Amino acid sequence: MDFRSFDAFNRRDLIRGAAMLGAGAMAMRPLPSLAANSQSAAIRKAAEAGKDASIKRLRDWIALPSIAAENRNMAEGAAHMAELARDAGFANVEIVPTDGHPGVFGTIDVGAPRTLGIYFMYDVKQFDPAEWSSPPLEGRMVDRPGFGQAMMGRGAVNQKGPEATFLAALHAIRAAGGKPPVNIVLVCEGEEEIGSPHFRQIATRPNILSALRKCEGIFIPAGWQDKNGNVSVNLGSKGVIELELIASGEKWGRGPKADVHSSLKAMVDSPAWRLVSALNTLVTPDGNTPAIEGWFDNVRPLSDREKALIREAAKHLNEAQQKQLLGVSHWIDDLPYEDALIRLAQEPTVNIEGLVAGYTGPGGKTILPGRAVAKLDLRLVPDQTRAEAEHKLRTHLDKHGFSDVEMNVSGGYDPTETDENSRLIRTELATYRRLGVQANLNARLAGSWPGATFTAPPVSIPAGHFGIGHGAGAHAPDEYYLIESTNPKVAGLVDSTMGYAEFLYTLAAIR
Amino acid sequence: MDFRSFDAFNRRDLIRGAAMLGAGAMAMRPLPSLAANSQSAAIRKAAEAGKDASIKRLRDWIALPSIAAENRNMAEGAAHMAELARDAGFANVEIVPTDGHPGVFGTIDVGAPRTLGIYFMYDVKQFDPAEWSSPPLEGRMVDRPGFGQAMMGRGAVNQKGPEATFLAALHAIRAAGGKPPVNIVLVCEGEEEIGSPHFRQIATRPNILSALRKCEGIFIPAGWQDKNGNVSVNLGSKGVIELELIASGEKWGRGPKADVHSSLKAMVDSPAWRLVSALNTLVTPDGNTPAIEGWFDNVRPLSDREKALIREAAKHLNEAQQKQLLGVSHWIDDLPYEDALIRLAQEPTVNIEGLVAGYTGPGGKTILPGRAVAKLDLRLVPDQTRAEAEHKLRTHLDKHGFSDVEMNVSGGYDPTETDENSRLIRTELATYRRLGVQANLNARLAGSWPGATFTAPPVSIPAGHFGIGHGAGAHAPDEYYLIESTNPKVAGLVDSTMGYAEFLYTLAAIR
Repeated sequence: MDFRSFDAFNRRDLIRGAAMLGAGAMAMRPLPSLAANSQSAAIRKAAEAGKDASIKRLRDWIALPSIAAENRNMAEGAAHMAELARDAGFANVEIVPTDGHPGVFGTIDVGAPRTLGIYFMYDVKQFDPAEWSSPPLEGRMVDRPGFGQAMMGRGAVNQKGPEATFLAALHAIRAAGGKPPVNIVLVCEGEEEIGSPHFRQIATRPNILSALRKCEGIFIPAGWQDKNGNVSVNLGSKGVIELELIASGEKWGRGPKADVHSSLKAMVDSPAWRLVSALNTLVTPDGNTPAIEGWFDNVRPLSDREKALIREAAKHLNEAQQKQLLGVSHWIDDLPYEDALIRLAQEPTVNIEGLVAGYTGPGGKTILPGRAVAKLDLRLVPDQTRAEAEHKLRTHLDKHGFSDVEMNVSGGYDPTETDENSRLIRTELATYRRLGVQANLNARLAGSWPGATFTAPPVSIPAGHFGIGHGAGAHAPDEYYLIESTNPKVAGLVDSTMGYAEFLYTLAAIR
Repeated sequence: MDFRSFDAFNRRDLIRGAAMLGAGAMAMRPLPSLAANSQSAAIRKAAEAGKDASIKRLRDWIALPSIAAENRNMAEGAAHMAELARDAGFANVEIVPTDGHPGVFGTIDVGAPRTLGIYFMYDVKQFDPAEWSSPPLEGRMVDRPGFGQAMMGRGAVNQKGPEATFLAALHAIRAAGGKPPVNIVLVCEGEEEIGSPHFRQIATRPNILSALRKCEGIFIPAGWQDKNGNVSVNLGSKGVIELELIASGEKWGRGPKADVHSSLKAMVDSPAWRLVSALNTLVTPDGNTPAIEGWFDNVRPLSDREKALIREAAKHLNEAQQKQLLGVSHWIDDLPYEDALIRLAQEPTVNIEGLVAGYTGPGGKTILPGRAVAKLDLRLVPDQTRAEAEHKLRTHLDKHGFSDVEMNVSGGYDPTETDENSRLIRTELATYRRLGVQANLNARLAGSWPGATFTAPPVSIPAGHFGIGHGAGAHAPDEYYLIESTNPKVAGLVDSTMGYAEFLYTLAAIR
């Protein structure tokens, strides 16, 4: 339902070995110097000269955490974002109101034939300073063995670090006396971490929609190189719905409205058992295939090309290592690895994220809970849609007699796909090639991000992720973003800055 | 699984209207003076004279909380209990070691023909001082409107207050120059609040077993008069098993050993769904009848007499009020009230106390949990036994292919029954009658307490609860015990003291 899913999959689970298609152990060339022309050299010189300013820019941004879930620093965060955009050369920067928290929009129009869209988030995930080894708002430099010196702070990699690095590229181009080789459209939201509930309002605002539709494509800056320097180029992502199913005496009209003593079970119905009964209708007995009526009506099987991409990518993966890191000894149905990876991309899922009812502490407590909650995420594949899925789940529950079981949908995205032949993806691949970075084509990310806001009508442009560099700890304590790399395969701040510059010039030049 | 269930049912849920058989609105005679003989008058005078000492004794005891779950003050609590017993006239007081925390045993042998057993607990429930309106270890006096001045503190009613009041009766009898009219055997444990896991070791120690077997019966002092002064006399209680069912990747050998990103659901099995699937086999689809194989083999239906007692007791109850206080609009199967009360006493249950898996906070978190837990309590009726039930549940799970689903039993009791014609129950009824207290016969408490330790072999004596007086808040903040009653139907400390004295004399004299 949100970018964090994607991010978590690529960063947190990468550490757990789950970055399915980016964890190969390819022999890598060291990072080369960028395209050997004088313009490039001037930009690099400017990026080096501006490094301290770039670091300060990131540190200052980390010091201002905007957290939509806590309604913390939202107006301040939007204002700061607007200021960052103006400083980097964006014109007509405006703070865009929504029914929730505001977004930011700006453009750089250099009169170039091509235009690139850039998607930013200015919000960060909640955090508990007590869990951190370094104060999460101070952006201190810490050593990350195997990588180098990194800035530690909330939002460091998710997503302020990569975003600030993209801005650093614009500063460097300007400082080198040039201007970007493509026009740039920036759209930014402050609710990514709560599932982008109002982002569509921003993207479809007439002036913004008009600007986005001129773009070759749009990406979010990302710093997801693994320790071998590899990255993934994602051609699509599953959609997702996050929701709670709630059985309660209140809505059911049976059972207690609040917790009562458990001895009463012999005369009082149980909302917890009702939830179990409702859940049991949603999947096959093995828990692995959705059994919601009509769920597969619009499921389009993977194409042969997509399957081939997955099989190709699998060659770079280490099944035994991944199993060990995930703590998994068998894939579903004991599938061979390649088939499991195809299943991963192909199948919609109904997953239990959490169960909460009654007493949840240590030991027991003799109560009959008045309310029971299952937190589910439902991953969707093309051509399912979020609206269709929500409707089918509700209809299914009603038809099975569970019309009292509440569906509390907190967020979701449609599935998204981007053509590998689009100029955006071709530019990503060409840029990575020029940077000497191994990029694996990922047919479909099993995680989810709001790419469909861009790829679906009315915007209808390619969307993806781009960037070199490295960080980890998204949503977790001790989040960091690499500044000074000691790993020759992984980019530090200046090389990452040059990566974005390289992308812009490649996009301007590619056929 | 423990006395707290019983207590909660009678005190906490009484406030919620659940004290099924003790909440009638009978017109009550005011508390009379006790049996009008000179001995009684002397004891009352001594009880009045000793009141300040009794209050101090209770306050000092509250200041020393023994909490088995926290291993807090256990040796100190046992030593204090032993001292309290010696002070009250018990001889041969010994601290009884167990595989857990120690118990205390002592006797008063006056050479009387009859012997009474008394069951004490010296431990109390955990508490958080921040939740209290008065410091929980200070035993301050507070006003409880409708009742009078009460001592507030952890353990005040559960169970130190009533226990200290029983001791006060022994002090008063001695101060009046007499000795108890019956011999007394005191057995005491310090693990009641964790389900009495080692109490059987105490009760079956040869010298203690021998002493208990001489008793007419045994009771735990209790202060459960409602605002009309009514009490219940329980002829039995359901048994209970408290346990966790745990599905985990660790034990299953499928799914993840720890939480992984939820997008992996398409290739990784889910312990949470496995738990749902296992739970679904345990009850009928409405959640109301155990479906564990062989569960009803030894279930003995209520006798006609027991049903008649329930119907009789129902006359004193207010269905509409109880429904409102419980927040329940329909009983199971829309049963009429009397039938629902019979079902309450008659049926074994499989109740979900709690569900815990994965992310349990606000909103969602896209994880696939490595572990899912259902906290269950299973109420048992005669002639089910705890051992039988545990075995059948395990066998059922194994037979349905869930041998990996762990059963973590934390405690339990067998069902217990005491004959209404036993001298213990007849003495209770006669004493209440003499005290002018309305006592309702409760055929079977749907809650549970460790009475079977006494009623089953090898002890095999009647067991119950006795006492007048009042308190509330067991296991909750602001627990209190009434000292100075302003309610003419409810006993304060001195009248409650006299209630225990009255019991002793009645037991000595009754046929």
